[in-house]
Amino acid sequence: MQYSPLLTDLIKNLQSLQGIGAKSAQRIAFSLLSGNRGKGLALARSLADAMNGIGECSCCRNFTEEELCPICSSKKRLQEKTICVVENPADVTAIEAASEYFGIYFVLHGKISPLDGIGPEELRLDQLESLIERIECRELIIAINPSVDGSMTSFYIADLAKKHNVRVTTLAQGIPMGGEIDNMDQTTISYSFSNRRAF
Amino acid sequence: MQYSPLLTDLIKNLQSLQGIGAKSAQRIAFSLLSGNRGKGLALARSLADAMNGIGECSCCRNFTEEELCPICSSKKRLQEKTICVVENPADVTAIEAASEYFGIYFVLHGKISPLDGIGPEELRLDQLESLIERIECRELIIAINPSVDGSMTSFYIADLAKKHNVRVTTLAQGIPMGGEIDNMDQTTISYSFSNRRAF
Repeated sequence: MQYSPLLTDLIKNLQSLQGIGAKSAQRIAFSLLSGNRGKGLALARSLADAMNGIGECSCCRNFTEEELCPICSSKKRLQEKTICVVENPADVTAIEAASEYFGIYFVLHGKISPLDGIGPEELRLDQLESLIERIECRELIIAINPSVDGSMTSFYIADLAKKHNVRVTTLAQGIPMGGEIDNMDQTTISYSFSNRRAF
Repeated sequence: MQYSPLLTDLIKNLQSLQGIGAKSAQRIAFSLLSGNRGKGLALARSLADAMNGIGECSCCRNFTEEELCPICSSKKRLQEKTICVVENPADVTAIEAASEYFGIYFVLHGKISPLDGIGPEELRLDQLESLIERIECRELIIAINPSVDGSMTSFYIADLAKKHNVRVTTLAQGIPMGGEIDNMDQTTISYSFSNRRAF
C-alpha cells in the first residue's frame, strides 16, 4: 500500500525503534494521527530534548543532562566508598530496583572487544582509575554480564583495581530464582556444583 | 530508580505509544541514547512533521498531506465508480494488500455510537453522499467490522446509498481461512450455516 510521504517516513522511523515491527509501527502511527496528535508532538519534543540534552555523568558515565547524576550527587552513596562496574545504564536500573546496593556505579557503555575495536580507552578506564583514587575506593564490585568478552573485561578491570589496593569482588553466578535445572546450560551447572555452599 | 528529568519524560512519552510498556520504553530510550541519537532525532522530526502536516483526503478522508490521497488521484480507480466504506485507515491498508479491489474508499474514522455521542455528522456522511453523486457511484461496498455499533452504521449507510439508487453490498461473513470451527462463536457458525453455498 502506497502511503503519503510523511506517513511513509513516520512508519519507517518508528520501525527503527528496538522491538517495533512493521505492523506495530503502522498501528502506532495511525493511533497517533487519529486523535492522539498531542501525544505525538509531546514525544517528538522529548525525543529531540533527550537526544540533544542528555550526556554522561562526569563521575559514573550514566545518562544525565546534569554534571552529576542523582546517585553521584548523593554524599551518602559516595561515603560507601564502593564502585559497582556495569556494562549499560539499564544494569544500573535493574540493580537499583533490587535495593541491595548503596554505593556508586561506573558505566562502561560496552565491554572490551578486540574484534570490534573496543579497548580500555573506549571504555574510559582511565576515568574509572581516577574515580577509584578520588573517592578512596575500598571495594570494587564487578557486575558485568558473563560472556567471553565480559570475562576478559572483568579480568582487565580486576587487575587495574588491584594495582590501587582495592578489594575486588564479582556477583555470584549460579542457578537464578525460578530457573529450571534441566534447562540450564552446562557451564552454569558445573559452576553451581563446584561453588556449592553449606546449607 | 530515579532518572534525570529529560530521560523520565522520554520514557513516559514512549510508554504512551500503543503497545509499549514500561520495560520496552526504557529499552528503546537507552538504545537511542547509546549510539542511535541520529535515529532518535529523525523520529522526532518525522513525528512533528506528520502530526502537523497530515490531514484528510478531501475525497475519501484517508490520511494524506496532499489535497487528494494517491488512490483518489487515480483516474482509473475513480472510473470504477465504486466506493468501499471502511472504519479506519488501517482497513484501507489491509484491503489494498489483498489486491482484490480497484475502486475508491471512504474512511469513516469511527462508527455510529450514540453512547459516545458519535452520529452521522461526526462520520461526515454528508461528504459520502456528495461523493456518491459526484463520481456517479454504481456500487457501494460496506466493509465495516461486524459488531452492534458496526451493524447500526452499516444499516444507516445502506439506507442513505439506496436513496441515491446505488447498489449496496457488504463483505461476506463466515469462517475465515485457517479458522477452527470448534473455536468459532455461535453467531458466526449459525450465519455460515444459513448462508451455505453450493460446493
